[in-house]
Amino acid sequence: MEKLEGKAIIAMGGGPTAVINQSLVGAALQARQYPHITQFYGAFRGVEGLVEEQMVNLSEATKHNLEMVAQTPGAGIRSTRAKPDEEFCRRIFEVCKAHGIHYFFYIGGNDSAETCRIVAQNAENEGYELRVMHIPKTIDNDLLVTDHCPGYGSAAKYVAQAFAGVNLDNRSLPGVYIAVVMGRHAGFLTASSVFARKFFDDGPHLIYLPERPFDTNEFLASVDAVYAEFGRAVIAVSEGIQDKDGVPITTKIKGEAERDSHGNIRLSGSNSLCDILVQHVKQNLKIKRVIGDTFGYTQRSFLGCVSEVDANEAREVGERAVQIAAWRKGHGSITIKRVGDYGVHYQLTPLEEVAKGTKSMPDNFIDGVNNVSIEFKNYARPLLGHSFPVYERIHAPRVPKIIHKD
Amino acid sequence: MEKLEGKAIIAMGGGPTAVINQSLVGAALQARQYPHITQFYGAFRGVEGLVEEQMVNLSEATKHNLEMVAQTPGAGIRSTRAKPDEEFCRRIFEVCKAHGIHYFFYIGGNDSAETCRIVAQNAENEGYELRVMHIPKTIDNDLLVTDHCPGYGSAAKYVAQAFAGVNLDNRSLPGVYIAVVMGRHAGFLTASSVFARKFFDDGPHLIYLPERPFDTNEFLASVDAVYAEFGRAVIAVSEGIQDKDGVPITTKIKGEAERDSHGNIRLSGSNSLCDILVQHVKQNLKIKRVIGDTFGYTQRSFLGCVSEVDANEAREVGERAVQIAAWRKGHGSITIKRVGDYGVHYQLTPLEEVAKGTKSMPDNFIDGVNNVSIEFKNYARPLLGHSFPVYERIHAPRVPKIIHKD
Repeated sequence: MEKLEGKAIIAMGGGPTAVINQSLVGAALQARQYPHITQFYGAFRGVEGLVEEQMVNLSEATKHNLEMVAQTPGAGIRSTRAKPDEEFCRRIFEVCKAHGIHYFFYIGGNDSAETCRIVAQNAENEGYELRVMHIPKTIDNDLLVTDHCPGYGSAAKYVAQAFAGVNLDNRSLPGVYIAVVMGRHAGFLTASSVFARKFFDDGPHLIYLPERPFDTNEFLASVDAVYAEFGRAVIAVSEGIQDKDGVPITTKIKGEAERDSHGNIRLSGSNSLCDILVQHVKQNLKIKRVIGDTFGYTQRSFLGCVSEVDANEAREVGERAVQIAAWRKGHGSITIKRVGDYGVHYQLTPLEEVAKGTKSMPDNFIDGVNNVSIEFKNYARPLLGHSFPVYERIHAPRVPKIIHKD
Repeated sequence: MEKLEGKAIIAMGGGPTAVINQSLVGAALQARQYPHITQFYGAFRGVEGLVEEQMVNLSEATKHNLEMVAQTPGAGIRSTRAKPDEEFCRRIFEVCKAHGIHYFFYIGGNDSAETCRIVAQNAENEGYELRVMHIPKTIDNDLLVTDHCPGYGSAAKYVAQAFAGVNLDNRSLPGVYIAVVMGRHAGFLTASSVFARKFFDDGPHLIYLPERPFDTNEFLASVDAVYAEFGRAVIAVSEGIQDKDGVPITTKIKGEAERDSHGNIRLSGSNSLCDILVQHVKQNLKIKRVIGDTFGYTQRSFLGCVSEVDANEAREVGERAVQIAAWRKGHGSITIKRVGDYGVHYQLTPLEEVAKGTKSMPDNFIDGVNNVSIEFKNYARPLLGHSFPVYERIHAPRVPKIIHKD
């Protein structure tokens, strides 16, 4: 038990999720239990607001207010895409030192873990004790070490409910329906569309992931085969699909790709991939009704679609980060270890292990080039929570024909 | 009380909704109360399946099965875009006569009411007693006579929850965000985005409806002004917006418009409008982050997003159609009359009054060229139901600056 008296700051980085505020509130309420964490601040707009000293004192937010915020999607104290360099980190310390801040909590993905690593390194170099904790969050589910990421379960639930709906819509008025799902390099979110399937002929009939090369001829042949069998086809496509040479299909289409400040190609916010696939089917197959949607920012923000398992875990990683920092020297990222079927333990992992990259779907989660495996279903199902809505078909006998007897 | 012994048939036409199966099940279960309605059939794919005698006997579906189907989005017995002509109607009678069907229920919009009218007219001409009832349904909320349409409330709830989410997402990572909402000629669904607003600076900050001419210069100026005031802008745009000469902005963009079998321009399933508006803002305003989504088929089908007021009313219009047909000669459409604030009565309206056209938003529901009025909010709020989720902001004091004192 190594108690350190000082203030704490929390910030958020990267794209928000439906449950990111659970982590914020879990941390804030937990910190109130420790008198040696004298105040708990929240920085607006991640490290950007921190260096500008734009902070609120969460020790003076009411419990009810925080509990309501916990149920709110989006980043309650806003977020940032900024990635600090050494100079930026120096400014972070100036603010920490000036305010007596000795606890730094940063909620985000692997870029945020990298920010934590730089900040922690810089603090050590300057001999300033700053306990730096990374709290995981991403709908892409692509962080290293952890079994899964808070934020993924709720986004996966949204995608599954959306596909359940469009499958029923497509069954009502048949045709080919294509929906593009978020996920830059990892197919976890697109794969969750599988939970829309109930009966043998329910969609999505084809699921295309960035982990497998996308071949337009295979795609057309598969759509044709599904349509021939069921008279309709529902297709889930990851925004990050690429050809055998690793060239994103989106990049091919858009020509000049837009990049964000981390050098990542910006895939969402453009509807081109969906349009081009729809046109491709229309032009090559003799199918009349071919339509598509690009599931947009609602995937990570829709008000009222949350996996309670995901919400609880997001809460707990925030709580655990504060519990560990309150009594131990050092830095780390909270990671989730799956125990049994289904439970979790929370662990502390060195920042560099989480910061250094991302992961994609393991081979045993993928079945061929356009489907997911039962291993994936077994892995992901608990994350969507207990309250997934069910749908049903009419079970009634056919009326014998009188005029058109066979 | 004019009892008529015979079988009944129900079918669905047009785009499905989240609660259309409530009407189906309301009618099916109500019909079981009347021994003179000897069997209750469901035709697959609307009038298309009917003429092919593709029917199921809903009198032999279990109550639990039907109740589960009632909670399922999409058309449980599938739907059709076909519009019968005189020849088609002759074939409908052949099937009705052959099967002893004397009750015809058709769930749909004004095109379906027109189908009912032709079928009823044809039956009268042939001296065959067929009681024809139109059961209203449309997410566009554009039927004549009725105060509002079953299916609208749930779609409106989806749109409001989606905008609440993307507003919070946009507040997390600011920029300009544009979402295109369904609604060919009527802005009711786009207007429901207003229920996402809670605090004074919440989006959607601008709402563009097909009822007001869309002017690209006004649009740019308004986006610029909102962005200058709040550092961000969330914009709701109807897919049906048109210029001052009545030319749809989508048609202008796409060149040659696609039309469905009713001669309507197909607006959904294409993402071009959103893309062009995003590009327009990017090219003309000095704003870095400009993104957009086209809310697609999830608006009318998302599994698990239903207004319970809408679900109950959809159920009741199905029940009422059967109750009236069971004891009265003649034809009609069930329409909803608003009583008090908020209750409804169900009325019988001549088919031709509902079939002859559609309505758009009345002037007093619209505020200027890019907003809705409090009269609209008062009108639409009850339709979204009681369980609309709430969101909250952190209320906490600012931390005084130490380094960057003003």
